[in-house]
Amino acid sequence: MKIETYPGTTIVEPNLNPIVKKGLRGWLIGNPLQTADAPSQTIGKTIGLAVFASDALSSTAYATQEIMTILITAGAGALVAVFPISLAIVALMIIVTVSYQQTIHAYPGGGGAYIVARDNLGELPAQTAGAALLTDYILTVAVSISSGVAQITSAFPFLDPFRVIIAVGMVMFIMLMNLRGVKESGKAFAVPTYFFVAAMAITVAVGMFRFLTGSLGTVVNPPTDLIPSTLALVTPFLLLHAFSSGTSALTGIEAISNGITAFKEPRSHNAGITLLWMSGILGTLFLSISFLSGKIGVTPSNYETVISQLARTVYGGQGILYLALIAGTAIILIMAANTAFADFPRLGALHAGDGFLPHQMTMKGSRLVYSTGIVALAMIASVLIIIFQASVTALIPLYAIGVFLSFTLSQAGMARRWWKSGHLKPGEQIVEPGSTITYDKNWKTKIIINGFGSLSTLTVMIVFATTKFKDGAWIIIVLIPLLVSVFFAIHHHYKTLAKRLSLENYIPHTRISRHRIIVLIAGVHRGSLEALTYAQSLGPDVTAVHVSIDPKETDSVRKKWDQYGGGTRLVILESPYRLLVEPILAYIQKLLEVRQPNELLTIVVPQFIPAHWYENLLHNQTALLLRAALVFKPGLVILEVPYQV
Amino acid sequence: MKIETYPGTTIVEPNLNPIVKKGLRGWLIGNPLQTADAPSQTIGKTIGLAVFASDALSSTAYATQEIMTILITAGAGALVAVFPISLAIVALMIIVTVSYQQTIHAYPGGGGAYIVARDNLGELPAQTAGAALLTDYILTVAVSISSGVAQITSAFPFLDPFRVIIAVGMVMFIMLMNLRGVKESGKAFAVPTYFFVAAMAITVAVGMFRFLTGSLGTVVNPPTDLIPSTLALVTPFLLLHAFSSGTSALTGIEAISNGITAFKEPRSHNAGITLLWMSGILGTLFLSISFLSGKIGVTPSNYETVISQLARTVYGGQGILYLALIAGTAIILIMAANTAFADFPRLGALHAGDGFLPHQMTMKGSRLVYSTGIVALAMIASVLIIIFQASVTALIPLYAIGVFLSFTLSQAGMARRWWKSGHLKPGEQIVEPGSTITYDKNWKTKIIINGFGSLSTLTVMIVFATTKFKDGAWIIIVLIPLLVSVFFAIHHHYKTLAKRLSLENYIPHTRISRHRIIVLIAGVHRGSLEALTYAQSLGPDVTAVHVSIDPKETDSVRKKWDQYGGGTRLVILESPYRLLVEPILAYIQKLLEVRQPNELLTIVVPQFIPAHWYENLLHNQTALLLRAALVFKPGLVILEVPYQV
Repeated sequence: MKIETYPGTTIVEPNLNPIVKKGLRGWLIGNPLQTADAPSQTIGKTIGLAVFASDALSSTAYATQEIMTILITAGAGALVAVFPISLAIVALMIIVTVSYQQTIHAYPGGGGAYIVARDNLGELPAQTAGAALLTDYILTVAVSISSGVAQITSAFPFLDPFRVIIAVGMVMFIMLMNLRGVKESGKAFAVPTYFFVAAMAITVAVGMFRFLTGSLGTVVNPPTDLIPSTLALVTPFLLLHAFSSGTSALTGIEAISNGITAFKEPRSHNAGITLLWMSGILGTLFLSISFLSGKIGVTPSNYETVISQLARTVYGGQGILYLALIAGTAIILIMAANTAFADFPRLGALHAGDGFLPHQMTMKGSRLVYSTGIVALAMIASVLIIIFQASVTALIPLYAIGVFLSFTLSQAGMARRWWKSGHLKPGEQIVEPGSTITYDKNWKTKIIINGFGSLSTLTVMIVFATTKFKDGAWIIIVLIPLLVSVFFAIHHHYKTLAKRLSLENYIPHTRISRHRIIVLIAGVHRGSLEALTYAQSLGPDVTAVHVSIDPKETDSVRKKWDQYGGGTRLVILESPYRLLVEPILAYIQKLLEVRQPNELLTIVVPQFIPAHWYENLLHNQTALLLRAALVFKPGLVILEVPYQV
Repeated sequence: MKIETYPGTTIVEPNLNPIVKKGLRGWLIGNPLQTADAPSQTIGKTIGLAVFASDALSSTAYATQEIMTILITAGAGALVAVFPISLAIVALMIIVTVSYQQTIHAYPGGGGAYIVARDNLGELPAQTAGAALLTDYILTVAVSISSGVAQITSAFPFLDPFRVIIAVGMVMFIMLMNLRGVKESGKAFAVPTYFFVAAMAITVAVGMFRFLTGSLGTVVNPPTDLIPSTLALVTPFLLLHAFSSGTSALTGIEAISNGITAFKEPRSHNAGITLLWMSGILGTLFLSISFLSGKIGVTPSNYETVISQLARTVYGGQGILYLALIAGTAIILIMAANTAFADFPRLGALHAGDGFLPHQMTMKGSRLVYSTGIVALAMIASVLIIIFQASVTALIPLYAIGVFLSFTLSQAGMARRWWKSGHLKPGEQIVEPGSTITYDKNWKTKIIINGFGSLSTLTVMIVFATTKFKDGAWIIIVLIPLLVSVFFAIHHHYKTLAKRLSLENYIPHTRISRHRIIVLIAGVHRGSLEALTYAQSLGPDVTAVHVSIDPKETDSVRKKWDQYGGGTRLVILESPYRLLVEPILAYIQKLLEVRQPNELLTIVVPQFIPAHWYENLLHNQTALLLRAALVFKPGLVILEVPYQV
């Protein structure tokens, strides 16, 4: 134990190693890291891409299919619209990417929708954006794990009855990996992420080569289960609906801007380049998949995915490369949950730091990650998985509204920022909590980009909410305002607390007029006499109190007290109804009523401490009951004097 | 509040009426009764018969059928043995009744198997008898409620899916009635008990009259489902098996001897007469049912009970009297549980009084009954009902072994008592805790009666245990020794505790050499300064301790402490792993290691008391964690100074 002494203060560094470096916890999540180790726990671009891009990249596994599933209601001919819609989505993706690229450089300390909205739009939009994102991260975990498990159970149907257990088990595994720290979980999850990217890139490259050389052909035995007998019309609404379904490709694109602080310095630079790589890979793969799918005549199906049809056509069968892509797809869907685990705790810590969530969420755990947030995410997502029985169909309508709401608010906030920037003189600056605003000569262009982005994502969100309202989207529309109210209630609590604890105008108590000490005795024995000794050390004004239930017992107490009580005043409380706690409460209530100002009242309760906890079942838990009954009374201290048995 | 003062002692009678006379509890079980009311809560013979006889009387509903079900395996011709076997059982019943009659007069303070075995055979047989009876009472509740519910669900099959809920609901109802007090529950349950006795007596009387006048006839369409195609031989073992099955008629006969203290004075007299009435009714009804059943050619069946066949033959159809008997039978089966509720808590209180069960069981609740025992019985029986899904077939093999074990031990104890009595000189006496033994000139006859009774019940028990071993009786054979071990472990705990608390050779602490006070501060605010004021009132040796997790926070604490700490020594504990509780524990451990003799150590923890309990979720529960970690450390007092927010 190292001890340094300053005038009036002693600094002690207790030796905690024997306490902290052992046990199951250490084995599960590793030995604790010191606060000073924090910088070494940041990650570079390669691991950063794996950690933060898996959610976004996993959407290439299903985005094209989502568009096709809507268009097919107007017949196979309507599928020609897939590629133009994909182009529009990629255009939106570019706008969003540019916007977030600017955000990342403007907010090097972390620039998610929450911070941008807080600095530029105010508390309510910020809390709304945060609530939307937090909800969406929980859903990301539930949906991606459930869809990963669905891939596994469609390959091994005998596992289907266990799908909820498997899904919850996977959530727990990813939770433990994340509790080990962002660096270790990043390393562990980098391999499958890059495996998927490589498998998908090879498939797309081979497909393009065969298309350009004219040897690609079309899908053999395309599935026909979704081709309808009566065709819907190709209306603008249908196209919009297909477009909004396809925008699920954009979910996860905001992840890097929330996680800037996880990157090595220079943070903004590294995070920005990672975002460009992510969007580049995402856009290229998505567009290529949509393009090739159109050329080879893929049809959407409930039984065979677009990726599977594409891969078997490209490779001319179901060989090793086909299997590699299918396996990689299943894994990336599960990995997508990891991105939520990287971002949810950080965003939670931001909320908590501003006093809108319990402040425990701002504390870094033994491995320098926000453990409370990680565990909370795992628990809530597991509950969702259990409630929805790991059904993707049931969960998917809840998904993506939150992320588009946060896109909208984030880009609106950025637009507001450019407007402020345009009205500064060169050299002037506005310092905000998250960043500093200076004059930007391109402010008009930037407002247009962000404003257009904001409107686009708002439109997508409204279409989403309308078309999926009945399927479950209403839950989110109810939930987000509810969450925001809870956040503000929490904020109110902390503000009130701070005001009540504030030392402004604080006048210290001048003196204590009286310290009345009550010692409760059930019988006269070594335990109660030990408590009496302690009570007497607190002050001279000691009264012993005994509750009389059995007259014989009371007689014995009186006689023994004469002998051993040392002259201490004894009060016997009659209890005609054989109650133990209630007469004490009534007596204390009486004392509190006649209390003078600055009078202290302390209740001393002797307590047996048995050798084993279960032996407590053999004793009345009077101390516990009294504590429960009295804890809300002001100006009263209860203490137990332990007596080892 | 009435206050009387004696020299050195004050007797206070707090006004508890506003606390105790209201709320759901009062509505459910009635207002509390004063200890002085106890004598008015005793019961007379009429209600006593209803309370304590329902278990025994209910066995007339099935005892004849139990005998027939065994005999029928040797064919319908073997049923001629029913009446002789019933005569043998009634003979045994007379022996047991005479034995218990003697016990009741010898033990006016309660003379169950437990007390008789304790006074005459020793602790181990007494605990065994008690464990056997307690187990049997639990099973009585589970079996009788389940069979009552089975009668209901066979009348209303649509209720079958809810049978477990209905059964548990009935247990709760009988529990509440018993928590109201023995007098009130007795009154409530007297009506159905006498209704059943009357219905059964009328049936038997009409049957006898018609038999004697030759107009009785035989059962129309007797059920044949249990008549076997290949017949077993009528061996002595088969007859013994049938006999032991029929002895279920004796279960419940011991109830009155356990419950003597519930009767009005003169207790022994009233209890003795009630026992005679009970045995008389039980024997007459049982014998008549067996006799008439043989005459009219009743065959046992899984679909129609013996009582139903008898009644429809006696009444010549299923009229109003038939229905009254069937309804009364269903109700008496449920009522049988009430006897267990009357006896289990009394027996539990006897065990607890001797220190073999938690002493809470000796305390009378607000309605002057042993509430803990009543609630415990209801809970354990409900768990059994849930585990066995309210199935009578599954529960019945567990039943009756316990009661015969207690018969055996009780009668063996009485035999031992007569032996002691015979070896006294006239005028001599032995005073035992439960009774006083004097010379009895008929001691040899009495030894023969009790000895024969004991051997008979022992035989029945062994046959029972052997024939039903595989069906579940093994559970009881394992459980009873286990329970006895637990009882002795509890006894050991209380004996050790009493020795440790004893004031023999007690030397009071001469003086306290030092009282070291530690006050924990997370921050410097009104709450922690209030705690400091309190700590300073305890003594001059106060040290403030702060755990440093965030260096900025620590700096602020140091600066504010200089201003507001009033010169109190401040110790800062470095926590490189961001742990809160562990550094404090390590520091306290160090202090305890260097502690001098008679040095006290008190830890003062400031604690916010929020306006609503759920607001506690927004605060670290440091005080709670510290308490949990430190409660087992000797010589240490932790106290929380509350600060209302």
